[in-house]
Amino acid sequence: MTRLQQQYAFLAECLKLAEIRRQTLLPASRRRENDAEHSWHLCLMAITLAEHSNAPVDLTRVLRMLIIHDLVEIDAGDTYAYDAAGMVGQHEREARAADRIFGLLPADQSAELRACWEEFEARLTPEARFAAAVDRLQPVLLNILTDGEKWREHGVTRAKVIARNQHAREGAEAVWAHALAMLDDAVARGILPEG
Amino acid sequence: MTRLQQQYAFLAECLKLAEIRRQTLLPASRRRENDAEHSWHLCLMAITLAEHSNAPVDLTRVLRMLIIHDLVEIDAGDTYAYDAAGMVGQHEREARAADRIFGLLPADQSAELRACWEEFEARLTPEARFAAAVDRLQPVLLNILTDGEKWREHGVTRAKVIARNQHAREGAEAVWAHALAMLDDAVARGILPEG
Repeated sequence: MTRLQQQYAFLAECLKLAEIRRQTLLPASRRRENDAEHSWHLCLMAITLAEHSNAPVDLTRVLRMLIIHDLVEIDAGDTYAYDAAGMVGQHEREARAADRIFGLLPADQSAELRACWEEFEARLTPEARFAAAVDRLQPVLLNILTDGEKWREHGVTRAKVIARNQHAREGAEAVWAHALAMLDDAVARGILPEG
Repeated sequence: MTRLQQQYAFLAECLKLAEIRRQTLLPASRRRENDAEHSWHLCLMAITLAEHSNAPVDLTRVLRMLIIHDLVEIDAGDTYAYDAAGMVGQHEREARAADRIFGLLPADQSAELRACWEEFEARLTPEARFAAAVDRLQPVLLNILTDGEKWREHGVTRAKVIARNQHAREGAEAVWAHALAMLDDAVARGILPEG
């Protein structure tokens, strides 16, 4: 195969991201969001909120991570943020998925995107910390916009939301503070148990 | 409203992009793709195919355009690429939509994203030409992967696909040549009339 044929094979395979459904609901239709829509909305959040990153970031690296961070779920499936049992073996499943999916690309690009995914997972660079913050804050926003329906369905409390997502403060302290205020408001409105 | 509240109001409104359906079908489920999924896939195409851009590009500017280029369709709706009647008044509808939607942001960001959208529409910079090329080549790929079902439904021929999308060569000559070869193959397979 030519380089372009390999790249097109990868691009065709990745369309399956739009078939991976998440637990969060979209506000207008109340249908479950999928990973492709989620990834796009994270990109929009990143360009809108970049000024609030704790450290200066290279936005191209942030966006690259957000565009590809969920591709492993094409094989490994989406693991719900509050499903501890589902997380057993998650990393191994996702690493095998990364081998296969990034492996469709020419070797240099495969290595580059694999490293990008691993950087996101490790959360050690300013770019990865900001990207991870956005990834955690987005479903909080969607749950608030859909009156906490999925939170209550899964017995999620304010304490659990904070425990699960508080590393967002490592990426964007101000946005995390804003999210905390929204959570307080959600408790006051009765759509999220205090826990 | 604080700056973060304005930004969050914009991010919440933009979730409606996932409710705007396009004519193209997704290969796995054969359901119609929506604008949010489409925008994400364009971003993936851009980072994968950037090396084929005719001119060197600032990838952050390309990605920013692709992330926001369809937001105006939240108000103006999707206009099918081969619907000449639907294009009457399209620019005015989209300009009004841009006023409202980008206007949710703080003034400096509103002006910045509005200029980004206008740059995309004008196709004068290398970044806009490459972004526009990707935007035209993506539905060609999806139509090929779904056996030309929507092409035949709308009476689209190879000649029409080329006439409508050939400005993609201004952004990425090599990818356009690859698309032409795919179109020849589609004609040979009987999924696209020559026209």
